[in-house]
Amino acid sequence: MALEQVKALFFDVFGTVVDWRTSIIGELEAFGKQKGFEAEWSQFADDWRDLYQPSMDAVRRGDREWRPLDTLHRESLITLISRHNITGLTEAEIDHLNKAWHRLNPWPDCVEGLTRLKAKYILATLSNGNIALLVNMAKRAGLPWDAVLGAEPARAYKPLPQCYLRNARFLDLEPTECMLVAAHNNDLAAARTLGFRTAFVCRPTEHGARQTTDLKAESEWDIVTDTMTGVADALEC
Amino acid sequence: MALEQVKALFFDVFGTVVDWRTSIIGELEAFGKQKGFEAEWSQFADDWRDLYQPSMDAVRRGDREWRPLDTLHRESLITLISRHNITGLTEAEIDHLNKAWHRLNPWPDCVEGLTRLKAKYILATLSNGNIALLVNMAKRAGLPWDAVLGAEPARAYKPLPQCYLRNARFLDLEPTECMLVAAHNNDLAAARTLGFRTAFVCRPTEHGARQTTDLKAESEWDIVTDTMTGVADALEC
Repeated sequence: MALEQVKALFFDVFGTVVDWRTSIIGELEAFGKQKGFEAEWSQFADDWRDLYQPSMDAVRRGDREWRPLDTLHRESLITLISRHNITGLTEAEIDHLNKAWHRLNPWPDCVEGLTRLKAKYILATLSNGNIALLVNMAKRAGLPWDAVLGAEPARAYKPLPQCYLRNARFLDLEPTECMLVAAHNNDLAAARTLGFRTAFVCRPTEHGARQTTDLKAESEWDIVTDTMTGVADALEC
Repeated sequence: MALEQVKALFFDVFGTVVDWRTSIIGELEAFGKQKGFEAEWSQFADDWRDLYQPSMDAVRRGDREWRPLDTLHRESLITLISRHNITGLTEAEIDHLNKAWHRLNPWPDCVEGLTRLKAKYILATLSNGNIALLVNMAKRAGLPWDAVLGAEPARAYKPLPQCYLRNARFLDLEPTECMLVAAHNNDLAAARTLGFRTAFVCRPTEHGARQTTDLKAESEWDIVTDTMTGVADALEC
């Protein structure tokens, strides 16, 4: 079958590999408690993520020069600190909060699933997160990547085609030799158009209990599952 | 001491981590035997490496557009096939030979040394080798990189300053938070000028028994040793 050609698995990270929302809320709550700030921290986390796609749009369009996600996250954070009436933070405190995105926890099935997959495939990130963010996250969470790739080395944010294509080229592979593993139907659709194989990992609580998007596979992806160990099962790892 | 600031270790790879010469000679000999070609394979290997620095020069000067080392290696290989009077190779055979650089064996102290260092530091390649070459090498040899970086994501070959600086930036680190581990005095000198800490690993047989360069530390590097486990010892890993 066509999946026999696959040599590398590329992974979306936020939502697919790590539970960013619970992690960010936990970081914000701990920070607030320590520093004596009060806010609706779950709303703050959702607001921060809501600014994620818009923050990349100007870069995607070419209206702003390339800059890594840490920079965009920090711009959004400063907007939200003001909106949530938090005052008096030092630059170091803002940096610490911004790097909460480096300290996200994986979904419980990921370390086992990735470790099994690594025995048979090259595992690489294909995230809009920047390299430092992904390396620090992997180091802390024990994510066994063979290569930390994605938007930063490609200098293009998903879902721009060059982000997928340049990352396949970095591994000297054709798109048909690559599979994208993601919890988001639109990410998989962009990759499949270019020739990538696709694995959908359903993460129905990525956005909390009231999530309305990506609750199911919206197309016939090559693999449909709800855990990383499920991907390993499907690929006989 | 200043080494306490170090958060990431960057590694030169060819010669420092892997014994390219013995590996390439072995690949060439096996290929020749299988295909019925005869040549002075150790001379062929040395000739190939002799073309390595010159092949990057036009790219460094900007006279040629950026291209990864696999491409430069292949151009050099085609030159040498002709020079050594080898005829009739298919494109697939040339590709197989070219990718011998993806199949280099590590020096015997490297896997243990790197594994010990990884517990305390971020380990990243800072090689002129391209990402595919380094990922395939690591997968085969068991080199536990946290990040596969170097000339390709920086789009600049060492010893150009931007190669070192862009790689430090990829990890969101200052040069003083980075140490270069290398078997080549000139590589360490280029990095130190920019603020990197330095570790010299003496590899006196990298170029064979008649090696005349890099037989000793030519400056007061922060660490001077002759094995990767020696680097781990010096950094108390």
